[in-house]
Amino acid sequence: MEKPLFQLVTIIADESLRKTIEEEIVNLGASGYTVSVVEGKGKNGARDDAWSGRNIKLETIVPNAIGERILAHLSTKYFNRYAVIVYTFDVRTIRSEHFEH
Amino acid sequence: MEKPLFQLVTIIADESLRKTIEEEIVNLGASGYTVSVVEGKGKNGARDDAWSGRNIKLETIVPNAIGERILAHLSTKYFNRYAVIVYTFDVRTIRSEHFEH
Amino acid sequence: MEKPLFQLVTIIADESLRKTIEEEIVNLGASGYTVSVVEGKGKNGARDDAWSGRNIKLETIVPNAIGERILAHLSTKYFNRYAVIVYTFDVRTIRSEHFEH
Repeated sequence: MEKPLFQLVTIIADESLRKTIEEEIVNLGASGYTVSVVEGKGKNGARDDAWSGRNIKLETIVPNAIGERILAHLSTKYFNRYAVIVYTFDVRTIRSEHFEH
Repeated sequence: MEKPLFQLVTIIADESLRKTIEEEIVNLGASGYTVSVVEGKGKNGARDDAWSGRNIKLETIVPNAIGERILAHLSTKYFNRYAVIVYTFDVRTIRSEHFEH
Repeated sequence: MEKPLFQLVTIIADESLRKTIEEEIVNLGASGYTVSVVEGKGKNGARDDAWSGRNIKLETIVPNAIGERILAHLSTKYFNRYAVIVYTFDVRTIRSEHFEH
């Protein structure tokens, strides 16, 4: 069991962005990802409500360097125009070759 | 990328508690949350089996202080009477204004 | 709120392995778990693609010692023959008796 050199990156976004984001994170180095649908709700009256509606929740495990690259990309491309939530945390994993090119 | 000042709080509970818990966590300061349905199973014969059945899994990202408030509330209100699972861990996030009032 | 003595173990595997893995983790000491279905995609052309297809995502919270036992078991039994993803991270929890025998 190695030290956390990998992070789980979670992206919550509108379903319409799914295909684009999927392609982008693979291009940035993710070896794979899972997707599920989540229902979100935001506080009523929130002006910029990233939580609400039918969203996709995309999860990928990547080496830290690729995680930073994905976050930088999403931040630059989406955060001014779209309601996208991104968070990340360290995970320990076995079989790390699944998460690297 | 700031230091972890936010935590992801996950609540697993019976579907019948969904609406109440949703309202409570927003009242306690969560700016939004996602919900999905998970199937749970507990060890046969467990007397107080919080895992079993069709449950909702509610996730929210909140500043640490609000996370503590949510945990204290759930603990006081539900834990003697209901099978509710709550856990939390630190996350790094970008666009933190989504998670604050 | 105790220190992290528990970990969340996540197992992503083909649906055909569901029943077997469920039984195994309970036999190894998990007191319960949740299951949901996730769609996975791997990089095209990956030879050993653990992400792709309709998978189950199984999550359990266990004391650290049991987590290590589960990881060792899955690693030994599945990793040479099946595309299984396993990762783990520390969580803080209240009501820890749910996660112990």
